[in-house]
Amino acid sequence: MQFYLNGFSPGDPTIATPQNRRGTQRPRTSQAEEIDVLIVGCGPAGLTLAAQLASFPDIHTRIVDKKSGPLELGQADGIACRTMEMFQAFGFAERLMKEAYWVNETVFWKPDDANRKRIVRAGRVQDVEDGLSEMPHVILNQARVHDFYLEVMRHAPTRLVPDYDLQLVDLEISSATSSHPVTVRLERLDPGRQGQVEMVKARYVVGCDGARSAVRQSLGRELRGDSANQAWGVMDVLAITDFPDVRLKAAVQSASSGNLLIIPREGGYLIRIYVELDELNENERITNRQLTVDHIIDAAKRILVPFTLDVKEVVWWSVYEIGQRLCDSFDNVSGDNSNTRVPSVFIAGDACHTHSPKAGQGMNVSMQDSFNLGWKLASVLQGQCVPELLHSYSEERQAIAEELIDFDREWAKMFSDPPKDDTGLGVDPAEFQRYFVKQGRFTAGTATRYETSLITGESTYQSLAKGFPVGMRFHSAPVIRLADAKPLSLGHVIEADGRWRLFAFCDLEAPSSAIASLCAFLANSPTSPIRRYTEDSEDIDSVIDVRAVFQQDHRVLESDAMPPLLQPKKGRYGLQDYEKMFCPDLRSGHDIFDMRGIDRQRGCLVVVRPDQYVAHILPLDAYEELGSFFDRFMLA
Amino acid sequence: MQFYLNGFSPGDPTIATPQNRRGTQRPRTSQAEEIDVLIVGCGPAGLTLAAQLASFPDIHTRIVDKKSGPLELGQADGIACRTMEMFQAFGFAERLMKEAYWVNETVFWKPDDANRKRIVRAGRVQDVEDGLSEMPHVILNQARVHDFYLEVMRHAPTRLVPDYDLQLVDLEISSATSSHPVTVRLERLDPGRQGQVEMVKARYVVGCDGARSAVRQSLGRELRGDSANQAWGVMDVLAITDFPDVRLKAAVQSASSGNLLIIPREGGYLIRIYVELDELNENERITNRQLTVDHIIDAAKRILVPFTLDVKEVVWWSVYEIGQRLCDSFDNVSGDNSNTRVPSVFIAGDACHTHSPKAGQGMNVSMQDSFNLGWKLASVLQGQCVPELLHSYSEERQAIAEELIDFDREWAKMFSDPPKDDTGLGVDPAEFQRYFVKQGRFTAGTATRYETSLITGESTYQSLAKGFPVGMRFHSAPVIRLADAKPLSLGHVIEADGRWRLFAFCDLEAPSSAIASLCAFLANSPTSPIRRYTEDSEDIDSVIDVRAVFQQDHRVLESDAMPPLLQPKKGRYGLQDYEKMFCPDLRSGHDIFDMRGIDRQRGCLVVVRPDQYVAHILPLDAYEELGSFFDRFMLA
Repeated sequence: MQFYLNGFSPGDPTIATPQNRRGTQRPRTSQAEEIDVLIVGCGPAGLTLAAQLASFPDIHTRIVDKKSGPLELGQADGIACRTMEMFQAFGFAERLMKEAYWVNETVFWKPDDANRKRIVRAGRVQDVEDGLSEMPHVILNQARVHDFYLEVMRHAPTRLVPDYDLQLVDLEISSATSSHPVTVRLERLDPGRQGQVEMVKARYVVGCDGARSAVRQSLGRELRGDSANQAWGVMDVLAITDFPDVRLKAAVQSASSGNLLIIPREGGYLIRIYVELDELNENERITNRQLTVDHIIDAAKRILVPFTLDVKEVVWWSVYEIGQRLCDSFDNVSGDNSNTRVPSVFIAGDACHTHSPKAGQGMNVSMQDSFNLGWKLASVLQGQCVPELLHSYSEERQAIAEELIDFDREWAKMFSDPPKDDTGLGVDPAEFQRYFVKQGRFTAGTATRYETSLITGESTYQSLAKGFPVGMRFHSAPVIRLADAKPLSLGHVIEADGRWRLFAFCDLEAPSSAIASLCAFLANSPTSPIRRYTEDSEDIDSVIDVRAVFQQDHRVLESDAMPPLLQPKKGRYGLQDYEKMFCPDLRSGHDIFDMRGIDRQRGCLVVVRPDQYVAHILPLDAYEELGSFFDRFMLA
Repeated sequence: MQFYLNGFSPGDPTIATPQNRRGTQRPRTSQAEEIDVLIVGCGPAGLTLAAQLASFPDIHTRIVDKKSGPLELGQADGIACRTMEMFQAFGFAERLMKEAYWVNETVFWKPDDANRKRIVRAGRVQDVEDGLSEMPHVILNQARVHDFYLEVMRHAPTRLVPDYDLQLVDLEISSATSSHPVTVRLERLDPGRQGQVEMVKARYVVGCDGARSAVRQSLGRELRGDSANQAWGVMDVLAITDFPDVRLKAAVQSASSGNLLIIPREGGYLIRIYVELDELNENERITNRQLTVDHIIDAAKRILVPFTLDVKEVVWWSVYEIGQRLCDSFDNVSGDNSNTRVPSVFIAGDACHTHSPKAGQGMNVSMQDSFNLGWKLASVLQGQCVPELLHSYSEERQAIAEELIDFDREWAKMFSDPPKDDTGLGVDPAEFQRYFVKQGRFTAGTATRYETSLITGESTYQSLAKGFPVGMRFHSAPVIRLADAKPLSLGHVIEADGRWRLFAFCDLEAPSSAIASLCAFLANSPTSPIRRYTEDSEDIDSVIDVRAVFQQDHRVLESDAMPPLLQPKKGRYGLQDYEKMFCPDLRSGHDIFDMRGIDRQRGCLVVVRPDQYVAHILPLDAYEELGSFFDRFMLA
């Protein structure tokens, strides 16, 4: 956390100084208001995007929702390691970790072979494999995730707050060239102003408005997929039980009463239970069954025999059908005409993919959707990147959603199938457990890999840093900050601020000039991406932030001799930024060079996108390749 | 963090439901308002006490300050490990750690032997020895510490907020027996109400009103001590310098220009510098010198030669004389008549001890003063403990203050002396560095040891747990929580909630009945302190909270067979509390039984006070001694 660069100011440093927005902000009269981005929907996808855009004082964003206020309970609760890494960049990971339940181990229960009417514990596994992420897998009410995002927005320089009670009526995309091509009509739903219509003209509109997305429908796009004709119930309850593993994530397969999944929740008492209910007839909708929470409770009791479950308070419950549905494009142009037009309307989250909730992927993948989109929109709006960059959103995220749908279909089937019995039918509990472990990386959100594209380089030089696969998220590791000897996780220097990062891994002793030459190139060469894309009036690291990691122990390095680029002078006073240089945490035994398979002889340059994904790996002296990589999508 | 025991409620779980206060709360008319505790002064001591008392809905506390609002800058900044442990109990350690500067290493500079006009680095040491605390030593503006406390108070069930612009006029202690023996007159200072006087009748008054404490003066007590006739300056600045260690804590001794100490500050740019200024004549006051910040800056520049210092912004500065002064009693009765009367007025923090700021002890010791007092006041007010308990505050804290004063005298002298030169006079820089390391435990705040007393047992059974010295703070260590396999630091289960803790270290296999028998005694025996001091309507752990730590790996223990006391049913629904049982973190290699020298054969019971100090160590079967220990000070 860095602050006071431009002078001291009292109070909470996470609350930014409010800054005026660029451009016209008209009063909301009958005339259409012109804004940069309209976000429809205050769910996880919408709020992630809003929190990202709120940090740019020169971007005018609005976020609207037809609900009358923030979510208070229910819905999603699983937060994958990868999502925690993103929350770290938004600044609220620590607080969330403190409040949340930590999924440390998972247990599996199956029918007792001696008496198949009773369940017995079949296995116990570590939930997240060692070293997968520096962050834990945690569980917290989705409403609290919203709260943290809303606070980030309120504290951002733009002081962004949602406009509730506003429903999308229709959306029209101008075919003519226009600065604000999307015209949206919004209708007020709040008592007293019901029926009033507001017009908004936006450069971009993003539909984060859920499975029944009005934005998606206005594009004429559909969710396509199938249903497993299986009804499930989910409930958040305060209950008394003698089931011994109620504070562990527990997957329970009963012989003939169905399956359930227990997810312990924050606070030490609350639990969520997913319970298998009736099989539906083909084409039957779940609403026809008129299922109540008592159905869910009764089914859970049957599955948990010989243990008892005495529900004292039902905080929230819902019933749903398992199904996997997907939209084939996440914007208004991809498909036919993506080469001729740049998209101006996007959809994210449940608006483009829906699946079963039990793998805990919905909220997580939705937030990653809009984290992918946020920096792209910001950089195009700021004139920093070519508008064609926006094609990459649907390209990248639609592929991920397809993987998710495939995974979920298999996972949901396994979850709904009965355990194998004498007839040999059903799922072998041991197989179920193996599948769970194998898919751990996927459900942790760390398996995402973007294909080679405009913004993802070839993996030609992957051998220089085997542990930072190109296209995957930058896998953080421990380091020591040179200037103040502070141990930290290197990835945590990445904030959700839209900047690119160059991590130079080097050896100050061996080819001693490699880092010095690289820094000289970056600081001075006319072909340096830093020189080309950073305005003279801006701090040198305001577009591309360079950090160096040396192989030496931090106590033997002297900062005096370091390249000036690694000791930049910034802000109105020209104060030095001391947080650009790092060393391995040798004392802890966790040497980042070993952990991430970095070539000690040659070193390497890891190019990281604003959303924490590795865009490229290059040799330290590949100046030309580095320059031409950024030239592909950035504007001088 | 546990919540939702009595039902779900939406929003931030750290914000408690407001609760009505017991007793009469009169409107503030000319009639005196009757309250339980009046705290005078919103500094660190006052706010620690207020935050502690605010958590008790049945205690009516007021806190007043003559200042017109919260502190915004300046004053103290060092936060010792021990203080961080206390902040953990108040719930804001994580947020503070994120914002603060971490003191990881300290460097020492001395005159260059080759050219004594220049300074050179003489040494570098780790700031806090390994294993001293699970918490770091950090630096943060005192104002931010206040902010965190103010938030704890605002979120507490009593919603306590300070009354600013209120100055103590006088204080009178009734000699007659009275429920509210202290009458205080407070004068308003705010424009418009200036001069208005409010009368308050309090059961207890605590003066946390600084070195010129009006409360102390009203008791006729004095700070006594001496001054070293040495002027020092301190400034918080944003500056440009080529001194290479400006982001490390740096003690600099120049040959003939004096000494300085650099303390890097939060945010990455701000630094604090303590600078030796002029020697004062005997009996001369520093105000006579009319020192300005330019004097401080110029002196710093002379000391730092050959390095430069270009100050861009002075955020705060002050000049002070070094002196150590102490009050011989911290309440209104101790000394002559402590056996006949119970104290009703106390002083804490700078009101009872002042010293030089450079060892970073002032704020830390002050907060520990009132953390010591807070639970005692609360338990007496709640009728839980005998009023004689209140004598222990002055007894315990006055002794600690004496140690501090002695330490500070030596430390300040060393800091003001010139480095040893050819004449052999002055301080040997190597000796200075050795002293610094040796005193690390003291400055970390972890060396405090209370003498045997009403509330501190004899160390008869110390051999059962060598690493938990009786009278010292409970030294936390890693464990795994049995029910959910969560790794955590055992001491973090201690919240600042006024409860006592019994940690039972045991072996489920060997004398297998030891823990079961202990729990049976505690739960059922009429001589059990839990039975004696807990009302039937209260949860079983609401006065004394029992936790067990087993020797076995958490994966092999089954919770079913555990004693009911370790699986208590609580709250309106009778929900089970799953957070009472722990196991060693064997996988990490940090076995708490080894780390704290616990007798594996016999086990032990560690009795911990509400302020985190070890009150007693007993064998697991010492039922009688356990009962009689609590009987000394608790009321049935």
